[in-house]
Formats: sequence, C-alpha cells, structure tokens
Amino acid sequence: MKIQVLKAVTSANDAIAAKNRQIFNRNKIFVINMMSSPGAGKTSLIIQSIKKLKKKLRIAVIEGDVASKIDAERIGKTGIPVVQINVGGSCSLEAHMIGPALDKLPLDKIDVLIIENVGNLICPAEFDLGEHKKVVVASLPEGDDKPSKYPVIFSEADVIIINKLDLESVLDFDIVNFRKRIEGLNPDAEIFELSCTTGDGINEWCNWLIKEARKKRS
Amino acid sequence: MKIQVLKAVTSANDAIAAKNRQIFNRNKIFVINMMSSPGAGKTSLIIQSIKKLKKKLRIAVIEGDVASKIDAERIGKTGIPVVQINVGGSCSLEAHMIGPALDKLPLDKIDVLIIENVGNLICPAEFDLGEHKKVVVASLPEGDDKPSKYPVIFSEADVIIINKLDLESVLDFDIVNFRKRIEGLNPDAEIFELSCTTGDGINEWCNWLIKEARKKRS
Repeated sequence: MKIQVLKAVTSANDAIAAKNRQIFNRNKIFVINMMSSPGAGKTSLIIQSIKKLKKKLRIAVIEGDVASKIDAERIGKTGIPVVQINVGGSCSLEAHMIGPALDKLPLDKIDVLIIENVGNLICPAEFDLGEHKKVVVASLPEGDDKPSKYPVIFSEADVIIINKLDLESVLDFDIVNFRKRIEGLNPDAEIFELSCTTGDGINEWCNWLIKEARKKRS
Repeated sequence: MKIQVLKAVTSANDAIAAKNRQIFNRNKIFVINMMSSPGAGKTSLIIQSIKKLKKKLRIAVIEGDVASKIDAERIGKTGIPVVQINVGGSCSLEAHMIGPALDKLPLDKIDVLIIENVGNLICPAEFDLGEHKKVVVASLPEGDDKPSKYPVIFSEADVIIINKLDLESVLDFDIVNFRKRIEGLNPDAEIFELSCTTGDGINEWCNWLIKEARKKRS
C-alpha cells in the first residue's frame, strides 16, 4: 500500500517538475538542485560561488529547509535574489513548492538558479524539481562510506562535490576509496574536490557552472 | 491527503511500537533509539560504548541503513550480537521492522539494546520504535544552527550528544550557541559533549547508560 501511495505522489510530482522545467527553459535559466546531508556545506558553497561569479552570472537561490530562515538570511547578505521555502512536515522540497517561489523571482534577469534542498541524503532523491542538473555535496567529516549507504542519491547525481578538503589532515577520510565507491555506482558523475574555508578547488566548480549556464543561453 | 496518509501510517506504527515496548519491558531490556545526520558518528559512539561497557552490561545492536552492511560488520567485530536492517525505500526505521530483528537476538541475555537509526534528521523523528529513550547525536562539523533547522528531532530527544569535540579548534562551531538553541526547544534534554576519537567525555555518557539500564532491571 505504501509503495502505491509513493508512486502516485512521485508521478504527480514529475508532471509538475516538467512544467517547472518548461519555465526554466523558456527563460534560459540553468537550474541545479543541490542536495546533501545536514551541514555538508551547501550554503557556504553557494555563498563562495556567488562571490566568485557575481560579475559574470546573475544568480538566484531558492532555499529549502524544514524550518527557519537562517540560510536565506546568510545568502541574502550577498545581495542576490533569494526565496526561503519551509517544508514543514515534508522531508524534501517537492516540485509543487517551486512555482510559488518562482513568482517571487525576476525570471528574466537570472542566468543560474540554485535550489538548495533540505539537508537529507534520502528523500530529495525521489523528487524531480525540474532542475537540469543534480549536484550532491559530500563532506570529509561524514566518512568515505556514504555512497554505499545512500546509493540512490549518489547514483542520480550529475555532479558530486567533495567539500571540507581543509580537514583532510585531521580526518581519516580516504578520497581514493570514496571515488572508487562513486565509480561503481555512477561512473559518469563529474567530481570536484574543494574547500569553502580555504577556497581551494572553487574555481574549477565555478568554471563548470559558467560553462553549463552558457550552454543554456546559447 | 498526504497528511491523512501519514497519520494512518504513524498511528499503525505507534500500535506496533507499543508491542515492541512490551517485549523490551518483559525482558528488562533498556532500549535507545539513536538518531543523527549521516556521518555524525553513531556507529563510532556505539563501538566506544561497547568497549567501555562490555564487562558491565550485555549490549546488543540493531543497525538501520538504507543499504549495505558496513555498520553491522564494524560492530560485529566487537563480538556482541548485531542485526542489520536495510530499509530500502524508507527514510527511517519503522516499528514493524524491529520485530523480525528481535527474533534474531538473545532477548534473555541483553541489558541494553541500541537501535542505530538511518542517518537522517527528519523522518526518524516521526516513528516511535518502542524505545525508552531517544538519543540524538550532533557533531561539530554540521554547524551549531542545526537545532533550529531540524526542530522536531531535537525537541523529542531525551539525550543530545555533541560529538567530534576533538575538531573544536579547527571549526567555528559555537557550543554555547548550540546549547542555547537546545535550551529554547528542549530544556529537559541531557547533553553530553564527547569525542569518539580521543575518548573525552565517553565515561559520562557510559555512566548514564549504566544508570538507566539498572533502573530498568530493578
């Protein structure tokens, strides 16, 4: 019974996601759905990306959280458009939540829309939001075994970011082992290693964003 | 509609959880439901606790994960009874999953059963498993804002553990701020600060486990 309910929910979700995608394409906005565990550093990465890119790309952000406006307030300080969605009893953003947020954004003045999903490695994998690329942020303190424990989200990712590289010397995270686990699940994923604290590796990730945004506008 | 489905699921869950609790009480087993983000250190904490306590308490573990047997294999090396549950498409352990695991455990030879839930700060808060105490493990790399972003799980916790204290000097986690957020949500929670890497603070947590297990046997 539960599976049938879930199927009905996700197929209704997919129809709305397709409509979201039409809106994004019509406006030539490149859209990513950024997912991770709580505290992996999505918001910090978004802030670093805005700082690097704000003269090159017009970025906007939709923030998903169970509760609070902490992240939207942090991002709002960079001066870019940001909308907070509180999902309340849900464990992920869902496609139907995106439309009302789009109404508050200047769609004709955006090159890249970053949707920061709720911190959760399970539920967000089930809901297409209409994005063009799925980005999963992993971080060294979480351990290198996570792809094997949360295979769905790591299999679906177009990009996997390994964040908090600055902690490598004080943790026993094995990057080779992590990459091997990803290779087994999702050999086509692009992988970026970076640190939002030191800035190492941020340029490579930002170059990818620029390249994808240009494809969408051309 | 979704809320009604959820209510039906959780009330069916609660009935099964009550039956689980009867089994635990009949066998005088003290049971905790340990919850956290992915990679906060639940398994490491369980292993440290077993090492400290195995001459004083007979411990068993039920391991919940979406996929893999990694954690059960790690814990199995300590020589205590352990059962792995893979929840597949669910985002939490649920009460009905516990019964089949109990069939594989020597219930008349257990003082403390630790149920390690799936790494997720949202869904596990919704499912009573029949435990006596809910323990939430937070860790410094996740950031001190998490109680405000995931208020349900932090409100329900009987015990909150602040793990990875050894990383305090390299991170900007503000323990006073974290404790203030907990105080606002859940002033009765017991809080333990510890590090599974250095062993600092493990004794205080283990003493709490001993005290609670003795209450249950007397």
